Amino acid sequence: MHFTAETSSNGVVERDFTVGEVPGVLWSPASGSGRAPLVLMAHSGGQHKRAPGILARAHRFVTGCGFHVAAIDAPGHGDRPRTAADEQHIAVLQQAQAAAEPIGPIIAGLHTYLAERAVPEWQATLDAVQELPAIGAEGPVGFWGIMQGTGIGVPLTAVEPRISAAVFGCLGHESLTEAAAQITVPIEFLLQWDDELVDRRSGLALFDAFASKEKTLHANAGGHGEVPRFEVDSATRFFARHLDRVGASSA
Amino acid sequence: MHFTAETSSNGVVERDFTVGEVPGVLWSPASGSGRAPLVLMAHSGGQHKRAPGILARAHRFVTGCGFHVAAIDAPGHGDRPRTAADEQHIAVLQQAQAAAEPIGPIIAGLHTYLAERAVPEWQATLDAVQELPAIGAEGPVGFWGIMQGTGIGVPLTAVEPRISAAVFGCLGHESLTEAAAQITVPIEFLLQWDDELVDRRSGLALFDAFASKEKTLHANAGGHGEVPRFEVDSATRFFARHLDRVGASSA
Repeated sequence: MHFTAETSSNGVVERDFTVGEVPGVLWSPASGSGRAPLVLMAHSGGQHKRAPGILARAHRFVTGCGFHVAAIDAPGHGDRPRTAADEQHIAVLQQAQAAAEPIGPIIAGLHTYLAERAVPEWQATLDAVQELPAIGAEGPVGFWGIMQGTGIGVPLTAVEPRISAAVFGCLGHESLTEAAAQITVPIEFLLQWDDELVDRRSGLALFDAFASKEKTLHANAGGHGEVPRFEVDSATRFFARHLDRVGASSA
Repeated sequence: MHFTAETSSNGVVERDFTVGEVPGVLWSPASGSGRAPLVLMAHSGGQHKRAPGILARAHRFVTGCGFHVAAIDAPGHGDRPRTAADEQHIAVLQQAQAAAEPIGPIIAGLHTYLAERAVPEWQATLDAVQELPAIGAEGPVGFWGIMQGTGIGVPLTAVEPRISAAVFGCLGHESLTEAAAQITVPIEFLLQWDDELVDRRSGLALFDAFASKEKTLHANAGGHGEVPRFEVDSATRFFARHLDRVGASSA
């Protein structure tokens, strides 16, 4: 793990890093004392590790809970080069969009394709970040990712026992059912009731598939991109309840 | 409106009252200054105005938000006598339960029967409570009621323009669809994903029926009686967001 840059503002230290060829960002409390839990954040399709929705939530998790937050660019996203195969997948998606064809199966195939590389990349990132003294290998780890972040995060969480709580959502496809059925950690699942891209029933079916005894669906009126702002607070409290062994009641 | 008793503990003043023949309780901040919003709370079937689930939430709304909270006994419940017709409805329900027949339609019929009396009783209670200087006729009013509280609260909220936000849930029946479609205020709707009494699809259909632009479904794993404790916090924040024009961000 190599740190390449460091800045600090509003109580949050932001450090760019690379693990192998994968670039990431680690946000940490400026005045941290002792070890603190870690939240992994996976961005949406076409986005990157420092997308506004990632950045805003990362700052909340750091300042609201004292957690560390790590994000990396997905394969072919952000600062990473696209392979010929990446370009081919994107071209297929763009052709379907241009032809107004159903893109659900294409999106699902793209996520499966990305997750094959992204899951081991996340595991290597977690290995590296947990070597930092302020985080450590024993601390609790959460995962946050909606849309493509769920397409990668569900298969990741299914095989990664270090993740002990996860926020997913705004996605649903039968290609994820098998992995979801292997997940038993607490889940908060977002669903947009009037989502123009994700079929409501497929989102409900994915929520249903998680084997978790504690799982909560938050379905909000509105379209795909209209997740309400108060869900940021809700995710903050969800992680505080499940990751913070001390201060959960104050969050 | 007649006050019949007053006690005070942990920062909450509790006053028993009657409006006509309907007995109720009003919980208020002990150190209130100026006017504060009001939350109406309707108990579940077979329960009463001071049931543990009502009492705990009422105290949270008072101490957490500085709100006033009013609860009344539903017809034939709590301190109120049962009429012969009440007894007849209960006998029909008990016979169906004993015979292990589907009770959904019977419950829906019972709620319709109760709401005919309970809706005007709630409106008379609201008239009376709003005459108190600490509440007033101009302040925001919320409604909280799940199960039978939803069976009464949905028709009440449909016809009562003073209610500006409501928490419903753990119920679903097509008999409520028409009233739900008249409701446009923000809604938080609870649903138990593994509810043994309420069909999941009927709960989702009732949530779908609300005309509200801002509505959120909170579906939690677990049976009818297993609404998680953290939903008390969520309802508190929901009312803080929608009723408290000043201090919402601190809740």
